[in-house]
Amino acid sequence: MNFCSECGHPVTVKTPPGDHLPRFVCEHCDAIHYRNPRIITGTVPVAPDGRILLCRRNIEPRKNFWTLPAGFMENGETTVQGALRETDEESMVRGENPVLISVISLPAFDQVHMFYRVDMPDFNYGTTAESNAVDLYHLDDIPWPDIAFRTVERTLKHYLELQTQPFYVLNDHIDI
Amino acid sequence: MNFCSECGHPVTVKTPPGDHLPRFVCEHCDAIHYRNPRIITGTVPVAPDGRILLCRRNIEPRKNFWTLPAGFMENGETTVQGALRETDEESMVRGENPVLISVISLPAFDQVHMFYRVDMPDFNYGTTAESNAVDLYHLDDIPWPDIAFRTVERTLKHYLELQTQPFYVLNDHIDI
Repeated sequence: MNFCSECGHPVTVKTPPGDHLPRFVCEHCDAIHYRNPRIITGTVPVAPDGRILLCRRNIEPRKNFWTLPAGFMENGETTVQGALRETDEESMVRGENPVLISVISLPAFDQVHMFYRVDMPDFNYGTTAESNAVDLYHLDDIPWPDIAFRTVERTLKHYLELQTQPFYVLNDHIDI
Repeated sequence: MNFCSECGHPVTVKTPPGDHLPRFVCEHCDAIHYRNPRIITGTVPVAPDGRILLCRRNIEPRKNFWTLPAGFMENGETTVQGALRETDEESMVRGENPVLISVISLPAFDQVHMFYRVDMPDFNYGTTAESNAVDLYHLDDIPWPDIAFRTVERTLKHYLELQTQPFYVLNDHIDI
């Protein structure tokens, strides 16, 4: 950040009175520009036969690696609404009965990733601008070396564990 | 937002190619300025005798109403680290054994509130710049009419329910 987004004057970095961290502040209009982590919200879509849906990324980063449908939560929506919207956008699936299964912080990237287990109402799904392939995988056939992101890998492993363990929400972080 | 925070030129509002929502974009340097929900992270501190800790707010909004320690998650930290930091800043309590108990979206405010149950290691706590009173409350003695925020009220009620029900994470939203 170089300029105040409110008045256009150059910003400086200093700790405002009563605060404990340096911020971008505008000494012309007194605006303080906070920066905070963003939420990635997504789903583990489960087909009626128990297979799970994965998407092969059509965009960088990690193009052509497999992922769960997920993306940045938007202003004006809930975490669930964002997760279902991303699922539709990336796989044309209308997820139902969302249940939170993982919350993973990525402090090095200023992100928090949240995933919901959702039921697929049927076997309908399709490729989209963001996914050049979409397919269903048996739980013992997940393409682990080709999974795009560690939060997706960790969420999938947690989902596998939940097949034989009492339900709990994974609350974890990945440092680097 | 009026000006590009990168180059200082006026921004315009339009939907970038491949996007589905209007954004603040700079037609001078091509920067796209996304705005996303922020996370409020906090705790339900539980004393060794089962009472819970509440803080009376020393700042607006809702000054002099009672709340759970919580605040904006910062870049570079995890949701748990943020919750423990806010608990220390607002009540001088070092929470232990954090367990996620609620995730509540506030789409009208572009926020997600997350609360962790934490154990207090002892009966030590204190007032701070943000809390003009800090006290322990029996579960049947919570000052409901004086609770500052609905996410705090809902989280406290969920914590009460968990005393007699199997554990689960409340995943909810408040629309307006």
